[in-house]
Amino acid sequence: MNETSYWLWYPGDFERYHALRQNFSRVERGMGWPAFWKSEGFRQRLVFRRRYTLASPDTFTVRAVSGAVGYVLLDETKYPLDTEILCPAGEHTVSVHVGCIGCVPSIYIEGGAIRSDGGWTVSDFAAPPVAAACNRYFTDPLRDPAEWAYSEKIYLPEAEEAVNGGVLYTFATELTAALEVVGPGLPTVYLGESRHEALDTKWCYFHCTPDSATRRCPRQALRCAFIPDCRVGDYAVRAIHQYVDIPVQAGFHCDDETLNRIFAVAAHTFSLCSGAFILDGVKRDKWIWGGDAYQSLFVNRYLTADRELEKRTLLALRPGEPVTTHVNTIIDYSLLWIRSVAVYVDSYGDDGLVALLWPSMRALMELCMAQREEHGFIAGRPGDWTFIDWADFDRDGPLCAEQMLLADAYRVMARLAPAGERAVYEAARQALLAELERCYWDEEKGAYVDSFQSGKRRVTRHANILAILFDIADEPRRRLLADTVLHNAAVPPITTPYFRFFELEALCRLGYLDEVLSQIKSYWGGMLDAGAVTFWEEYDPAKPPAQQYEMYGDPYGKSLCHAWAASPIYLLARYFVGLRPLSPGGAAYEAQPETRFFRSLDATFPMGGRLVRIRLENGALQVEEI
Amino acid sequence: MNETSYWLWYPGDFERYHALRQNFSRVERGMGWPAFWKSEGFRQRLVFRRRYTLASPDTFTVRAVSGAVGYVLLDETKYPLDTEILCPAGEHTVSVHVGCIGCVPSIYIEGGAIRSDGGWTVSDFAAPPVAAACNRYFTDPLRDPAEWAYSEKIYLPEAEEAVNGGVLYTFATELTAALEVVGPGLPTVYLGESRHEALDTKWCYFHCTPDSATRRCPRQALRCAFIPDCRVGDYAVRAIHQYVDIPVQAGFHCDDETLNRIFAVAAHTFSLCSGAFILDGVKRDKWIWGGDAYQSLFVNRYLTADRELEKRTLLALRPGEPVTTHVNTIIDYSLLWIRSVAVYVDSYGDDGLVALLWPSMRALMELCMAQREEHGFIAGRPGDWTFIDWADFDRDGPLCAEQMLLADAYRVMARLAPAGERAVYEAARQALLAELERCYWDEEKGAYVDSFQSGKRRVTRHANILAILFDIADEPRRRLLADTVLHNAAVPPITTPYFRFFELEALCRLGYLDEVLSQIKSYWGGMLDAGAVTFWEEYDPAKPPAQQYEMYGDPYGKSLCHAWAASPIYLLARYFVGLRPLSPGGAAYEAQPETRFFRSLDATFPMGGRLVRIRLENGALQVEEI
Repeated sequence: MNETSYWLWYPGDFERYHALRQNFSRVERGMGWPAFWKSEGFRQRLVFRRRYTLASPDTFTVRAVSGAVGYVLLDETKYPLDTEILCPAGEHTVSVHVGCIGCVPSIYIEGGAIRSDGGWTVSDFAAPPVAAACNRYFTDPLRDPAEWAYSEKIYLPEAEEAVNGGVLYTFATELTAALEVVGPGLPTVYLGESRHEALDTKWCYFHCTPDSATRRCPRQALRCAFIPDCRVGDYAVRAIHQYVDIPVQAGFHCDDETLNRIFAVAAHTFSLCSGAFILDGVKRDKWIWGGDAYQSLFVNRYLTADRELEKRTLLALRPGEPVTTHVNTIIDYSLLWIRSVAVYVDSYGDDGLVALLWPSMRALMELCMAQREEHGFIAGRPGDWTFIDWADFDRDGPLCAEQMLLADAYRVMARLAPAGERAVYEAARQALLAELERCYWDEEKGAYVDSFQSGKRRVTRHANILAILFDIADEPRRRLLADTVLHNAAVPPITTPYFRFFELEALCRLGYLDEVLSQIKSYWGGMLDAGAVTFWEEYDPAKPPAQQYEMYGDPYGKSLCHAWAASPIYLLARYFVGLRPLSPGGAAYEAQPETRFFRSLDATFPMGGRLVRIRLENGALQVEEI
Repeated sequence: MNETSYWLWYPGDFERYHALRQNFSRVERGMGWPAFWKSEGFRQRLVFRRRYTLASPDTFTVRAVSGAVGYVLLDETKYPLDTEILCPAGEHTVSVHVGCIGCVPSIYIEGGAIRSDGGWTVSDFAAPPVAAACNRYFTDPLRDPAEWAYSEKIYLPEAEEAVNGGVLYTFATELTAALEVVGPGLPTVYLGESRHEALDTKWCYFHCTPDSATRRCPRQALRCAFIPDCRVGDYAVRAIHQYVDIPVQAGFHCDDETLNRIFAVAAHTFSLCSGAFILDGVKRDKWIWGGDAYQSLFVNRYLTADRELEKRTLLALRPGEPVTTHVNTIIDYSLLWIRSVAVYVDSYGDDGLVALLWPSMRALMELCMAQREEHGFIAGRPGDWTFIDWADFDRDGPLCAEQMLLADAYRVMARLAPAGERAVYEAARQALLAELERCYWDEEKGAYVDSFQSGKRRVTRHANILAILFDIADEPRRRLLADTVLHNAAVPPITTPYFRFFELEALCRLGYLDEVLSQIKSYWGGMLDAGAVTFWEEYDPAKPPAQQYEMYGDPYGKSLCHAWAASPIYLLARYFVGLRPLSPGGAAYEAQPETRFFRSLDATFPMGGRLVRIRLENGALQVEEI
């Protein structure tokens, strides 16, 4: 018998509660900055139930999350919470009623046979009971789900440097840590992802003062900390790194040290950005963005294969019904969220997540489909954000790239729908593909144009890249697009690492691996040469070091530890090591390393619940499951 | 210029937050008992906005409710909360962004021209901005909407009595109070609505221990408090009555002292049950029930005419979308909630509440209409509660009384719907009335029968009373029903004060005022004779005093201060003093006292925003607006 008890809650509500906390946790220069989209709440009133047949009497005690009120029903008798209850042998029903306003209602039961493990149902009085949910981080009766139960690791500064009349403490790497400051008084501490930022007491993002009792500052991203008006030795400073324990399963070692370092730093970057959820960055925004998360699913499949992390993230992004706005307000992020569910299924199979998400998927697609204009193209309403990328699109009328996403969302919906609901998406996809071809394909330019209304016939890379990735262009046309768009210097280059991910994968698909490897080594290797210990939100080799911190018009606006910068993990694993699932969940897979790039290789990746080790030594290839 | 600032929130969300607190506040014998229906949450992320044109510079400071995070935007510049901000003369937009998980997000602005008064909009990022809401109880920057700002009044015990080895403290009336206990140690205090209950340390509903710092016990209903093992003088005991200041506007004095006392005790009972919301009772359930609230609207129209109290209550009961369950799980309460909106409009006119509630009204009626069987009758689904009353109905198939409520809900919907939406309800009503007549009217019995399926032709009072009240029976039939049902001893009597309200009003409608007055004097007068200081949930004159406390199988289960027991206020005002609105809001009204019941009368009631005083002295009738 599994003797572990778990905190139990309503499926998805733990994620919504912690997503609220996450998306409201951004603080910059003393100002809270809650995410600017519709925030989804959690259910406040639940009843948990389970029927037991006991061979012998049992005793059990029910706890509820802090702030909850409620009671226990054993058959027809009421008992208080936090009280040992005796249950005689025989058939019995245990019900736990709880209400909680400020955090996710949840319960924990210690006992013998009666305990909070599998087999409990939960109802919100609005829908039939469903299986209660739990996770592996919440098994301790004294650490309830109101607060995330972080693991902690203590870091000492790598350097303490007297500078500007104070002391700068620098850690070996970036951390998300509560800084502990022991010494005289309660000094103001200035934090930074960089030395520059921490020393800039006026413009750095965070400053804080240790709590007088614990001597700890609030949990915050930092690599450097500066205390003015003090000398080396005045303060004992430690960083209590607070993280979610998600083991990296991947390993990558080859004869190219730059690639090895890129892989290691990318893995470290991704791990820092992954905790309760997959975030965009650890200093900024600390929000859960659908587009960023989408890309991260590809990385995580090969790095940790922690499906629970992905599930929490998809649940946190799930729109509430009725759906009136888009994921993060962005139409493309709605469509990428739909697509993310298919990526999850490709990685891990359908373990019940699709059934849980389907009502939201359907409602979100209803919103998208209600927004179509007469050709069937999706167009933004006032307040919708048609993002795609920071690029100079011809935004006259519906944008082509958005229709590529819509077409693929239809494909995903048709694939994942219950049998009776597939046809509508299949038909919508076929109609859209025909109109896409008729309206946006420019035969003369050999490319899809941004707008079919303006007459400007402007070609950008984005729609064409998506046409390649989503198999909207057939093989001859994909080859054509390589010339007319991808390798056409007249088409403006992609400027953001966000869309660079899509472009690099399109190049990989078309076989331009040398080009991709070269870009990986120059772009990510360039960051390493510039001293990066984690990969940045953006990197422009042309900029002098002191200007590398600016972004969005803010002198320290750039995130120096950003999830999307971890994409080499995916590109290397999928296209260079050549490991990919052949069936949803990876029960069948393929391992075809591009051996010409490696003299030696020893790479291990999770796949279908196993670890696959691929070794290349002296021309001999070995693939084994370990 | 009105210089008051108000706490601002999203319309209806203040009510949902405090309804959660109210419905989760029931505690009995140490066990929390949160209400067992779907609980509606509040929005956690808002932005408030207003455009100003300033003739001169202004400074302002923005506060947010405790636990909120956010910032202020003055045009394009961010400022922290709790900071004085200078706004130059000219055109400016002020936006306040807030996120709050644990309580209703709300803001307060102190300033000159820029302050949180009328004119602010609020958006939840899911729908277009709407006018922000506020109320008169939240104007103090230091008392935010996280906690209700109760008024307080101190009561000393009327008697201190040595009994059972301890001391019993008895107050002049029932209170909802924090008991203050000053003296040695922290004694356990046993509370009761009656002497019997407080002295029963095993079975009384509440016991508590004063807080060591404040010496106060939690706010709770009480008339008596017992401290065991002490002597008179050991403890100084006071009750800090905590209430919402809702002035009684009505006055009633006539030559019949019993009636005067009934009116006064009913007014006191109703006031105790009315605070943030209209509750059923102050000791139990302390929940917001749609059926109880419905009846209370009639009383409150004549007693306080505080429309805000009614509005808060209707908003607290409003189902969230999508609507999948009934108000308080009860089909009749859904239909009575619909009807309540019309009662509100009759009392105060449509001041915008209908527009606010309409989406919920429509969605709730969609649920009801989706539940109709082939005749168009509403029938309960598993989990629905078809209540009507605690009575022995023939529940084989759809229950007749429920169809009476449905027919009248159609009428209300057709009346209050936007023009384009009326026809569907009108048509549904006509179809239902025809089927009602065909299936439930029993010509031989001269009455509506409970079930048309069972063949038992069982007649109960309920459906027939509703047919009278809702004008479903025409005048000749109403007269017939008086004989075949109301005055037919073979039809089982109404046993609950809840449905007695409907029956007494039906008798009034048919002109049986002598009978009603006699019942008022015997039933309510009987409670007074039994020592009631507030009116009870139920009263059976046949029971000996010691058995008056039992209900629902619990020795102290009966509520001794129950809102529905205040109905004489309505019956006396409407049918005996004869004051009633002739148009929605009471701009036109009628005052026709039934002078034969009074030798002298001096009654004042609110009506259409005025106070109407009706005096009868020496046969002379005087009606004036004061």
